[in-house]
Amino acid sequence: MPRIIGRDERVTPRSGAEDIVAAIAESTRASLAAVNASLGEIAAVACSAPGPLDHRGGIVHEAPNVVGFIDYPLGPRLAEELGVAAIYLDRDTIMAAVGEAVAGAARGARNFIYVTISTGIGGAIVIDGRLLRGAANTAGEIGHFPVALEGPRCGCGSYGCVESLAAGRFVAEAYGVDDAARVYAAAAAGDEAAERIVTRAEKALGNLAVGLANALSPALIVIGGSVAEHEPSHTLEPMRRAIADRAFKVAAAAVKIVPAALGRDVGMLGAVIYGRERVAGRDEWFR
Amino acid sequence: MPRIIGRDERVTPRSGAEDIVAAIAESTRASLAAVNASLGEIAAVACSAPGPLDHRGGIVHEAPNVVGFIDYPLGPRLAEELGVAAIYLDRDTIMAAVGEAVAGAARGARNFIYVTISTGIGGAIVIDGRLLRGAANTAGEIGHFPVALEGPRCGCGSYGCVESLAAGRFVAEAYGVDDAARVYAAAAAGDEAAERIVTRAEKALGNLAVGLANALSPALIVIGGSVAEHEPSHTLEPMRRAIADRAFKVAAAAVKIVPAALGRDVGMLGAVIYGRERVAGRDEWFR
Repeated sequence: MPRIIGRDERVTPRSGAEDIVAAIAESTRASLAAVNASLGEIAAVACSAPGPLDHRGGIVHEAPNVVGFIDYPLGPRLAEELGVAAIYLDRDTIMAAVGEAVAGAARGARNFIYVTISTGIGGAIVIDGRLLRGAANTAGEIGHFPVALEGPRCGCGSYGCVESLAAGRFVAEAYGVDDAARVYAAAAAGDEAAERIVTRAEKALGNLAVGLANALSPALIVIGGSVAEHEPSHTLEPMRRAIADRAFKVAAAAVKIVPAALGRDVGMLGAVIYGRERVAGRDEWFR
Repeated sequence: MPRIIGRDERVTPRSGAEDIVAAIAESTRASLAAVNASLGEIAAVACSAPGPLDHRGGIVHEAPNVVGFIDYPLGPRLAEELGVAAIYLDRDTIMAAVGEAVAGAARGARNFIYVTISTGIGGAIVIDGRLLRGAANTAGEIGHFPVALEGPRCGCGSYGCVESLAAGRFVAEAYGVDDAARVYAAAAAGDEAAERIVTRAEKALGNLAVGLANALSPALIVIGGSVAEHEPSHTLEPMRRAIADRAFKVAAAAVKIVPAALGRDVGMLGAVIYGRERVAGRDEWFR
C-alpha cells in the first residue's frame, strides 16, 4: 500500500479550465515543497479527473460537476504547466478501481464493479482483470444509467440518472441545502421532506444495484465515495437488500457487495497506484 | 447463412416442464419426418431456451414467462428424450446474438449489444468478440435492469424492469388485451389509455438505451424481436432519439443502433449457427 507523504488540497475554481490547471500546478508544487522534493525526483505524475474523458490523449470531454471542462486537453496542459514529459490522466473512478484492485477491497478479484457514491455517482467495470473501456471510453459511467422515468435535470443534461437522484450534490439540492449530511440528519430526525428524498435516493441505488447484478452479473461490487462511507445504511445496505429481494436468485447468490477499503484518499492512492502501474508498462489491465 | 429445411411450431404447454420436454421432442421428430431425416443424420442439436440458465449443465434456473422451469435440467432431459449424446443449450438471446454476429447485422463487430423486444425483453453483451457471461451467467439480461422507481410486478418478481414496462406481454396486460399489437393500434387511433402505456414503454426503452450507451459504450446495438420488428417507430426510433438527446455526446457518437437482420427466425437460425460453432470447438467466442 502506498503512503501519502505530501498533501495539498484546494477548492476547485469555478472560473474556467485554465484556472483549474493553474491551481493544480500550484498545489502540486506546494505539496512537493512541503516534503523538500522536486518534480525531477518524481517517477510518475498521475491525474485523477472527472469524466467522460480520453485517457490516451488526456482530453476531458465533459465533466458534469466541473465548470469549463469541455473537450479540454487537461493532460497535455498540465504536463506543459508542470514541465514534465507526460501525465497519466484517467477517470477518477478508473483510478479508484485500480487502487481497490491492487491494494484494497477488490484484491484478487478479476471481475468486479467499482461504484462511487459521492458528489456524483460513477464507477468502473473490470472484466477478466481488464478495464472495460467501451467504444467511447465511457464504460463504467453507471451514475448516468437512468433508473427513473422522470426526475430533476442531471448535470449531464439528462434526467432519471441514478446520480441525479442519489448523489450527494443532488440529495442536498433537492432539500435546498449544500451538504447531503444535513438531509440524512433531517430524515433521521423525522423530517418528512428529507425522508422522501432519502427514500427516493435509496430506491434509485437499489435499481442500479439490481440492474448491475442482473445485466452484468459481477462477482463483486465495491462501494466507495464519501456518501457511501458516511451513510452505509442509506447506500450499501439498501443496495444489498435490493439485490437480495429483487435480482435473479443466481445473480444475487454470486455477487458480494463490500465497502471500499481505501477510504477518503482513494482518489490519490488510486492515482499513485495507477501511475506506478502505467510506468511498469501495464495499461488496460493490472495485477 | 443457414437455410431452414424443416419446421414444426407448437404452443408451449402451461402444464409443467415434463410436458414441455415431451412437446419439444415430438416437434423435433415431426420436423425431421417432414424432410425424411432422422436424428442419426444430424450434426448437432441445439436448444434455444429462456434464461437465466447454466449453459454448461443445461439447467434453466428460472424462466419468468414459462411455467415449470425452476432449476430444471432441460438440456439433459431433452437429450435423454431424444436419445442423443448432447444438446447445445443456451439462452435464446445468446443464440440470437451469435446468429446476428455470424450471419446478421453484427457481422464483423467485436463489441456490440443485442437487444430483443418481444414477449419479454432480453439481450446479450459481446466484448472483444466474446460473450459476457458474468459470475452467474445472467450477463446480458438487460430486460431486468430496473428503469423506473415503481411499476407493475415483473415476471421475475421485481418491478421497474424495462421488460415489465415495454415487453409485448406487459404492454398487452397493461391494456387488458392479449396482444400488444392491439395497444399500438389503439394508441395510433388516439385512445388515451393506450397512448399512456405506449409512451411509458418508449420512455423505459429510452432509459435502457441511454444507460447502455453511457455505462457500456458499445459500438453497435442490434435490436431484434417481434415487437421491435413490427413497431420500429415505438422501439428502435425512440431508443435512437433518447441516445442522441440524453447520452454522453461521445458515447452517442460512437454507437450505431440498427435493426436485427435475421427476422422472426432468429431463434432457430441462431440456434443452428450456435450449434455449428460449438461443434467446431468454438465456445465463449465466435467468428
